[in-house]
Amino acid sequence: MLVIKKFGGSSLATPARIIAVARRCAEDYQKGDDVVVVLSAIGQATDDLLSLARQVSDRPPKREVDMLISTGEQVAAAVMAIAMSAQGIRAVSLNAFQAGLRTSGSYGNARFRKIDTERIRHELDDRKIVIVTGFQGINKYNDLTTLGRGGSDTTAVALAAALHADACEIYTDVDGVYTADPRICPTARKLPEISYDEMLDLASLGASVLHNRAVEMAKKYDVSLVVRSSMNRNEGTVVREVTGVERMLISGVALDKNIDRITVIGLKDEPGVAFRLFSIFAKGGVNIDLILQSSGHDGLKDISFTLADEDADEALALLEKSRPRLRYRELDLDRGVAKLSVVGVGMMSNPGVAARMFEALYNEGVNIQMISTSEIRITVLVDEREGEHAVRAVHDAFELSE
Amino acid sequence: MLVIKKFGGSSLATPARIIAVARRCAEDYQKGDDVVVVLSAIGQATDDLLSLARQVSDRPPKREVDMLISTGEQVAAAVMAIAMSAQGIRAVSLNAFQAGLRTSGSYGNARFRKIDTERIRHELDDRKIVIVTGFQGINKYNDLTTLGRGGSDTTAVALAAALHADACEIYTDVDGVYTADPRICPTARKLPEISYDEMLDLASLGASVLHNRAVEMAKKYDVSLVVRSSMNRNEGTVVREVTGVERMLISGVALDKNIDRITVIGLKDEPGVAFRLFSIFAKGGVNIDLILQSSGHDGLKDISFTLADEDADEALALLEKSRPRLRYRELDLDRGVAKLSVVGVGMMSNPGVAARMFEALYNEGVNIQMISTSEIRITVLVDEREGEHAVRAVHDAFELSE
Repeated sequence: MLVIKKFGGSSLATPARIIAVARRCAEDYQKGDDVVVVLSAIGQATDDLLSLARQVSDRPPKREVDMLISTGEQVAAAVMAIAMSAQGIRAVSLNAFQAGLRTSGSYGNARFRKIDTERIRHELDDRKIVIVTGFQGINKYNDLTTLGRGGSDTTAVALAAALHADACEIYTDVDGVYTADPRICPTARKLPEISYDEMLDLASLGASVLHNRAVEMAKKYDVSLVVRSSMNRNEGTVVREVTGVERMLISGVALDKNIDRITVIGLKDEPGVAFRLFSIFAKGGVNIDLILQSSGHDGLKDISFTLADEDADEALALLEKSRPRLRYRELDLDRGVAKLSVVGVGMMSNPGVAARMFEALYNEGVNIQMISTSEIRITVLVDEREGEHAVRAVHDAFELSE
Repeated sequence: MLVIKKFGGSSLATPARIIAVARRCAEDYQKGDDVVVVLSAIGQATDDLLSLARQVSDRPPKREVDMLISTGEQVAAAVMAIAMSAQGIRAVSLNAFQAGLRTSGSYGNARFRKIDTERIRHELDDRKIVIVTGFQGINKYNDLTTLGRGGSDTTAVALAAALHADACEIYTDVDGVYTADPRICPTARKLPEISYDEMLDLASLGASVLHNRAVEMAKKYDVSLVVRSSMNRNEGTVVREVTGVERMLISGVALDKNIDRITVIGLKDEPGVAFRLFSIFAKGGVNIDLILQSSGHDGLKDISFTLADEDADEALALLEKSRPRLRYRELDLDRGVAKLSVVGVGMMSNPGVAARMFEALYNEGVNIQMISTSEIRITVLVDEREGEHAVRAVHDAFELSE
């Protein structure tokens, strides 16, 4: 049996934790399994490296940032190999060059193109635990590229697919996927399993247990994931194609506070306005999240959208620069908003989910600023200060703790 | 004109110093020169990484140690490229995989086999400053290997040779090569130039301005080196083949306090004893420095040798283990010794140098414990506490400050 095990930075934050991870991997290895370990950078190493870059430049080139921060995973992989060898386990660390992780796409946001698994297979055949640097790959210029935050999850899934692994375990600092964040909602319950689609919506909505692209890739290549804690032995949550008839109505409630809302006020109400507006962001590389357009009046209309906190300033700058072309009246930025979502494949066949959610918020006096829905998700924008309270209200309304 | 510039860790210890180095390199670049920069790890980064390894293992495998510590130079190279780009200079950092640095030999002590300069030339043609990770290379297994301490000097010289560079500048925290360590001997004078052989002897004797293997390689490929400070604009010292008739009698006085002396007492005075003794160290990987054998009496003899501080414990352990085979009476370890040397190609044709040195030491009451000489060097072992005083005495005796 071939097992991929991915550990994040918090699981490696101290030498004692590194040694604990080494021992845990050694158990499966000693049972006879082939083990490939994918690691993120240790603790806050990536942030430390980024802060170093900012000390010498306001706008570090992305190629060099990738060259810089990809060292974090190499340090983690080498230290893990050293820790395993101290446990008497044969292990070898491989970086992106050695593990054949080939990418395409832009620096800081690359995607896997293919994986040349020859070296990994050779080392596995040699009965070694193979430790692979997560989060990175080599592009066609032979340059290091990173996959974006959380990219180590994607590395684990890509390796599971390429090596036809029997299991892909994502170790994190929580026990699994919960019906809501247990820190916010004490009655939250751990889900034994969840579908890819639900996980995708939860991940993109702020329940940051698994990286979204990792789930997409897992779905595409039919890789079953297990999300579990590196700190204990509890059963985790299995992410897979759920086909049973007894699917839950709602799987979970997610809250994302790291977003801002921008409203472009007084746009001319004519065809092509939205296209012109959002093509600016597409060209500028700014990701837009929810979009809401009011119906126009007096020949004018407003368009609101949400985006990640850290992109707000760049978005405003792009809008200011394009003011002559867009001819809007003014811009409004609200940094104090949060996105609250309920997710569940069951709601597809069950009307009234939205109504129940809105009723719960109304009963608690929470004002809804924007609404957005998909087949398996209902998202509302609320005041950030009311967000956690709103999570508990909605969690109770759907009786998720039972 | 193509210039190689190598900067050590102390020249990169703070963001301000990194920016200063970036500006300095930019000057040559803006004059129209092609510039290749070779960097060591920033400040104490290598030691920090080694300490991390020791926190998870008493005996980290050498392959993984190389994988670990080679990240230090990659961080330095990427941060330098970022700092240069903030100065408006086009720059690209290349690690050992990208710069085509191919090595052979053991982990932690690899040697350059060849350099595939294609990528470097391509980037130079593209008018970029090319920043190359020092201290490392890739072996035939595609694994990272390091060159041993000071290996970045060797990288600079190897690149100078492979690229047929017009100059190879080694920037350090001293102004150049002095007749003695200025911190010990205030009257020490900077040498405008020095021969490879003299530099070799000085480097191996504790004047740690340049790494020995770098000088050997520079001699072999006839690469002129300039040793100068990254902190000021002073002219440095040129290291090259000195052919003039007016070569100095003595170039410098060096002191090495990081050595210990071991004496093996009461060995049987018969053929093969020295062979058996030193083959133990050869097999154990312990480097022996000076060797002195007393003439025997009563069928017994003593053999003394010096070695690096950090190797003494292992050497003693090896000797203890081989006691039955070597049949010596006892071992003596003296940690309080220092090696004092005078070096100069001029002494080859000039008798009386040794006598003048011994006289100077006698006048100051410094006891000589061992003597070893080569064609261009005289070395004596003295009490460590008298070492610095002895340097000043010998420096004065040869009138090196004039």
